[in-house]
Amino acid sequence: MSEPVVPQPDPAVQTAAAERLAGLATPAGALGRLGELGVWVSAVQGTCPPRPLDDVRLVIFAGDHGVAQHGVSAYPPAITGAMVRSFVAGKAGVSALAAAHDVAVRVLDIAVDDDLEGVPTDVGAHKVRRGSGAIHLEDALTPEQTAAALEVGRTVAREEIAAGAQLLISGDMGIGNTTPASAMVAAALGLPATEVTGRGTGVDDAALAHKLSVVQQALNRAGDRLADPVETLTAVASADLAATVGFLLEAVESGVPVLLDGLMSVACALSAERIAPGARAWFAAGHRSTEPAQSLALEKLGLEPVLDLGLRLGEGSGAVAAVPVLRSAVALLRDVALLADLLPPAEA
Amino acid sequence: MSEPVVPQPDPAVQTAAAERLAGLATPAGALGRLGELGVWVSAVQGTCPPRPLDDVRLVIFAGDHGVAQHGVSAYPPAITGAMVRSFVAGKAGVSALAAAHDVAVRVLDIAVDDDLEGVPTDVGAHKVRRGSGAIHLEDALTPEQTAAALEVGRTVAREEIAAGAQLLISGDMGIGNTTPASAMVAAALGLPATEVTGRGTGVDDAALAHKLSVVQQALNRAGDRLADPVETLTAVASADLAATVGFLLEAVESGVPVLLDGLMSVACALSAERIAPGARAWFAAGHRSTEPAQSLALEKLGLEPVLDLGLRLGEGSGAVAAVPVLRSAVALLRDVALLADLLPPAEA
Repeated sequence: MSEPVVPQPDPAVQTAAAERLAGLATPAGALGRLGELGVWVSAVQGTCPPRPLDDVRLVIFAGDHGVAQHGVSAYPPAITGAMVRSFVAGKAGVSALAAAHDVAVRVLDIAVDDDLEGVPTDVGAHKVRRGSGAIHLEDALTPEQTAAALEVGRTVAREEIAAGAQLLISGDMGIGNTTPASAMVAAALGLPATEVTGRGTGVDDAALAHKLSVVQQALNRAGDRLADPVETLTAVASADLAATVGFLLEAVESGVPVLLDGLMSVACALSAERIAPGARAWFAAGHRSTEPAQSLALEKLGLEPVLDLGLRLGEGSGAVAAVPVLRSAVALLRDVALLADLLPPAEA
Repeated sequence: MSEPVVPQPDPAVQTAAAERLAGLATPAGALGRLGELGVWVSAVQGTCPPRPLDDVRLVIFAGDHGVAQHGVSAYPPAITGAMVRSFVAGKAGVSALAAAHDVAVRVLDIAVDDDLEGVPTDVGAHKVRRGSGAIHLEDALTPEQTAAALEVGRTVAREEIAAGAQLLISGDMGIGNTTPASAMVAAALGLPATEVTGRGTGVDDAALAHKLSVVQQALNRAGDRLADPVETLTAVASADLAATVGFLLEAVESGVPVLLDGLMSVACALSAERIAPGARAWFAAGHRSTEPAQSLALEKLGLEPVLDLGLRLGEGSGAVAAVPVLRSAVALLRDVALLADLLPPAEA
C-alpha cells in the first residue's frame, strides 16, 4: 500500500505499550491476541497504559439498493425500513448486543426507499436520496450525491467524537447491500465477481449465480472509473456505503480508532485506505464474515478478526460482540501486575 | 460415550429455545454460534427465554506438582505461591479479566508447596496436602487424598451454587500442571504421551521431549489403573485437579452450567464425564488452548470453543474472556423482536 497521508499512531507509545506487555507478570506471549490488541489500543489512544473503553459508539447507516429489485437478496426491500424501525425500538439483533455491552447505537436513514413516517426526524436528517441506483444498470449515485454522502459521514463522525466517542463502529442496513460492497472490494483489489461474491443473508445457488452476474455487470459497466476510489463509490457503491467511508475517514483523520464489522464495514475501510493511505492503522477487525470479499479485504488491510462466530446479521453486530474482547485486552495491559513488582529483585 | 447417569437439561425447554431462535426477526442462521449458545444456556437454565448471566463465579484451584522439580516447566515451582498471592491481591491476568467482565473470583490453596503466610486463612481452609507426587515416579495422591480432594471440590461448588452462581468456571494454578492434565487426557482417550503433550507456558524443544517422557513414564507406571477414572486421579493427576473434578461433578449433578477453560479445566471435564456419563451436557467450551490435549478432549466431549485468541495464561482466563460471548448469546435470544411481532401478518 502507499505511503501514509493520514496521521499515524505515536510509535513511541506503541513501543512503550509493547514493553509494558513484555514486563507483565505473565509468561512471555501468554496473552496471545489480547496482548497485541492491548498494544494497539494503547497506540491509537496515544497513552500507555491504555484507558478503559467506556464510550463506544455504533452508527448504523441505512439505505436501499436498486439491485434489491433484481433478485440478489433472499429478502424483499421493504425489510430495510422495517429494520430501521426495529433499531429505533431497540429490538434488533444489534440492539440486544449493544445493550448487553454498553455500546451506544445511532441509526441514520441515508437512502432508505421509504418515508419512514413516525420515525424520529433526526434519523432522516442526513438523508441523501431514496434508494441508490441499480449498479448493474446505472450509477449508484451522482458525483454530487457521493460528495454529499461522504460529508454526511464525516459530520456524523465529528458529532460522535465531540460527544466523547473513544471507539467507533459502523454498521450498515439495507437489503441487497452485500452486492455493492462486493463490487467495492472487487474494484479495490482488481478482482472479478467470481472471487468476491457470497451468499449474503442466504441466497440459494441460482440466486448466487445471478448475484455474481450482477456484480460483474456493475464492474464491467464502471470500467476504468474503478481505478479511482471516489468514482468507484459513485459507480458501484451506494449512499449509505459512501457515508460510511466518510465516517471512517473522519475517524482516522481525528485519530479515533474504529472496530470493523462485516463485509460492508470492511469494504468501506478498504475504500478509506484507498482514499487516505495509512487509514488502516486506526482499524481493528471485530468478526470474520462468511462473505469471501470481507476476508480478501481484511487480508489486504493486514487485519485478522478477533471473533469467528458465524454471524451474518450485519448491523455492526459482529463488531459489537467483539467490544468485550478489546476491553479484555485493555484490562490485561492496564491492570495486571508487572513482574518487577511481583517478585523480589533477585528472582525478577 | 455411555448412557447418562446425571440429570440432563430439559429437552422441552431446549426445543422451545430452538423454536424461539428460529422465530427471531433475523435471517435464518444469521446468529451463528451465538444462536446455538443461546439455546444451550436456555436449556441448562431450564427456562426460555434464558435469564441474563449476572452471577458468574470462577474458582481457582491452586497446587504444586512434584514433576515441576523435574524440568517439565519453563518456570520454577515458587511461582505457584506467588501467583496465589497475586490472585488474592487482584493483580493477576485473570483478576483483570474478571473485574472487566463482572466475574467473581475465589482462589483455594489445595496443594501449594508453601505455607502462604499472610494469605487469608479461608484460601487454605481446604488444603489437602503440600504438593502432589511426581507422577513419573510415584502416585500423585493416596486414595484417601483423592477422595478428600473430590469432596473439597464438591463442597466448594455447593457453596458457590448456594450463594447464587448461575454459571461456574474452574481455573487451575500450579507450575507443572499441564503435565498431569496431559496424562489425564491420555488416560481417558487411551493415547500415548506423544499425542497429548504440548509446550505448556512455553518450554523449548529439549524440555518438551523431556516432558513427553515424563508423561509416558507416568502412564506406564499407572498401567491398568488408568481404566478407572478415579484411580487415574490418584495415579497421575494431583490434588488441585481432583478437586476440580469434584467441583465439576457437583455442578452438573446440581444442574448448574460450567464454562470450561483451557487444558486443566477440560481434562477435568473429561474425567467428570468418565465418572458421570452425561456430564458434558452441562459444559460449554470457552477458549481453544494451544495444548493438543485440550483439543482432543474437547473433541471427545463434542465441544467447540467460542474463542481462539492464542491465550495460554491458565487461571481460567480463557473462559472468563468468553463470558461476554455467552452474554451476547443470551441477549440475542432474550431481547430481539420475534418476526411475528415485527411484520404485519400478511408478510410474516
